[in-house]
Amino acid sequence: MSSFDALWDQIAPIGRVAGGGYRRFAYTDADLALREWFVATAEARGLDVDTDRAGNLWAWWGDPDADGPGLVVGSHLDSVPDGGAFDGPLGVVSALAALDTLQTKGFTPTIPIGVVCFADEEGARFGIACAGSRLLTGALDPARARGLTDADGSTLAEAAGRAGLADLGPDPEALRRVGRFVELHVEQGRGLVHQDAAVGIGSAIWPHGRWRVDLAGRADHAGTTALADRTDPMLDLARLITGARESAQRHGAVATVGKVHVEPNGVNAIPSRVTAWLDARAAEEPAVRAVLADLAALSPAEESWTPRTPFDPRLTADLAALVDAPVLETGAGHDAGVLAQAGVPAAMLFVRNPTGVSHSPLEHADRDDCLAGVAALARVVEHLAGGHP
Amino acid sequence: MSSFDALWDQIAPIGRVAGGGYRRFAYTDADLALREWFVATAEARGLDVDTDRAGNLWAWWGDPDADGPGLVVGSHLDSVPDGGAFDGPLGVVSALAALDTLQTKGFTPTIPIGVVCFADEEGARFGIACAGSRLLTGALDPARARGLTDADGSTLAEAAGRAGLADLGPDPEALRRVGRFVELHVEQGRGLVHQDAAVGIGSAIWPHGRWRVDLAGRADHAGTTALADRTDPMLDLARLITGARESAQRHGAVATVGKVHVEPNGVNAIPSRVTAWLDARAAEEPAVRAVLADLAALSPAEESWTPRTPFDPRLTADLAALVDAPVLETGAGHDAGVLAQAGVPAAMLFVRNPTGVSHSPLEHADRDDCLAGVAALARVVEHLAGGHP
Repeated sequence: MSSFDALWDQIAPIGRVAGGGYRRFAYTDADLALREWFVATAEARGLDVDTDRAGNLWAWWGDPDADGPGLVVGSHLDSVPDGGAFDGPLGVVSALAALDTLQTKGFTPTIPIGVVCFADEEGARFGIACAGSRLLTGALDPARARGLTDADGSTLAEAAGRAGLADLGPDPEALRRVGRFVELHVEQGRGLVHQDAAVGIGSAIWPHGRWRVDLAGRADHAGTTALADRTDPMLDLARLITGARESAQRHGAVATVGKVHVEPNGVNAIPSRVTAWLDARAAEEPAVRAVLADLAALSPAEESWTPRTPFDPRLTADLAALVDAPVLETGAGHDAGVLAQAGVPAAMLFVRNPTGVSHSPLEHADRDDCLAGVAALARVVEHLAGGHP
Repeated sequence: MSSFDALWDQIAPIGRVAGGGYRRFAYTDADLALREWFVATAEARGLDVDTDRAGNLWAWWGDPDADGPGLVVGSHLDSVPDGGAFDGPLGVVSALAALDTLQTKGFTPTIPIGVVCFADEEGARFGIACAGSRLLTGALDPARARGLTDADGSTLAEAAGRAGLADLGPDPEALRRVGRFVELHVEQGRGLVHQDAAVGIGSAIWPHGRWRVDLAGRADHAGTTALADRTDPMLDLARLITGARESAQRHGAVATVGKVHVEPNGVNAIPSRVTAWLDARAAEEPAVRAVLADLAALSPAEESWTPRTPFDPRLTADLAALVDAPVLETGAGHDAGVLAQAGVPAAMLFVRNPTGVSHSPLEHADRDDCLAGVAALARVVEHLAGGHP
């Protein structure tokens, strides 16, 4: 059994729920079990493990303070509700398996090598994606982070306290140890399927944003109000859903209405108000802005905007020289993007996802493709931390 | 000050919430206060008040057991969330005011006259509309009724216990006392506006039903899934909303999508499932069925169906002879419809609603129109319980 298979089997049962998906929300029992597994697994390999002030776990081969900055690989362990097995853990397990490959063949690093598990990447519990990496770099205000609450009213500060974290905040020292960061991740679309490749190199994260659309109506009785007398915000919701899809198609973007809130949400009541959220992304900002312009009549209000995040061009070129793989961009946010925005040279490796499905129990990557990912990551580490490139 | 105004002012503050609407859910403090007000007000007029096994309040002028069955007027006192002041209470207050008119002029009934307050008409707390009248007639199974729960998990049986009701169930004896029933109600559309009339006579309740529409999708990442690779149930929701409206317009029906449930309802997640509910009504059943046929591709599943309920033709004709008012049908369910289905000769009087808005703080009827309603009701009672017609 390969090192990858053994590690994968160890975490497979943790946080698994009926239906085959996973609930590994930050700092819950499942997440804490995964964190303990990571510490024990890294220490068994002779790595030095510590936790930064933002809750992220680091396992170092070599001393990044004396000999750093180092090369860091890794990803995250938490999941969305009923998420798949691969989004996050594939990057952590592949990093450990890649180090096993190198240790087995007697490789000696010339610079320190770190494996990172970023905390709370999905934001499934406290609502902020990449909370661990954003807190680390200072992109997320520490006071705001500490006060974020989950559905039960527990704060992130209280939850992180369960993992022994007393004073959540940024950690410039931990960040300074990171010379370059390469995150391996399952692809969440079918770009590699179309290119017939097991592994790909990520060169940029698309600009993306979310908008809230408040659709006002007039509460009325569904049985007695003539159609002509209605102000029914559901009709505007239909216009938003249909318009967003058609406009995205026209401009080469993607647009999604994934969240809707209806008041009073009664079967026999014309709604007084519908609130919907629009997620829109594209390779270039003008395409996203064109979608929003098409929907201007519905007055979308911007809730967040992240500009295009190119990964480090030199690092991307290094990866392309080492790994025979297509270069692609992604529409998803990642911790690698947060680090890139903080000035850390970062890039990504993607592993083919046959259906493209993610954030679902159906998320999948074939074992051969996962092993190809481990091999690619091992080659990258060997060369970037071995003095060759 | 007229009797109507005085009574109206007495209940105006009860259950009023910020925004000007009312929350008078069955057996809550507000509803119990209204019930106590009704008992005290009726007893002050020399009426005999009792409560039937289903929780409905009856105030009798004369003895319905000895001299019945009698003529009953009235409506309900409970409200929808943030409902208006008129839906329900207008019928109760008008009934009491009409009796004041008759008592003042020295009228002596030849048959007993009852004023009824039906319990839990809106179903806002326990989910079943007309629960009090349905329980009374046996249309609602008593065991099911007792076990209905509100949002806090309290059962209808527990809630009714607060009003002193120990053994909720049907009450054939109370029902037998009702010779004929006339319910006055604020109109919930603009039929009387279009006919330029203060008062109208209800001749039938439209056939109506509700359908659940399960729209299956595939959970996917909103940023990375190409449009062509998506199975997004929101697009089907848009088709349902738009299709229901267009089809209703074509067939002379009304159709409403008022309630929607999205899973997982995340901004960056293509939904795995959307459930929507369709309410459809028309003057005749074939029009409703035609709307459903147009939407057949979305596989609507029937959750409830109430056939057309004509009110008693002789009683409707009597009302038309007594009151100079247009005859109209309604798309809303009422306790009068439940009694009609149980074989009680029933009919309705409607009072003009200038905007047609109902189930909303904006619901309104002009004072002059309310007084015209009281006068019409007094005339009806005088003649139907005075031996004239």
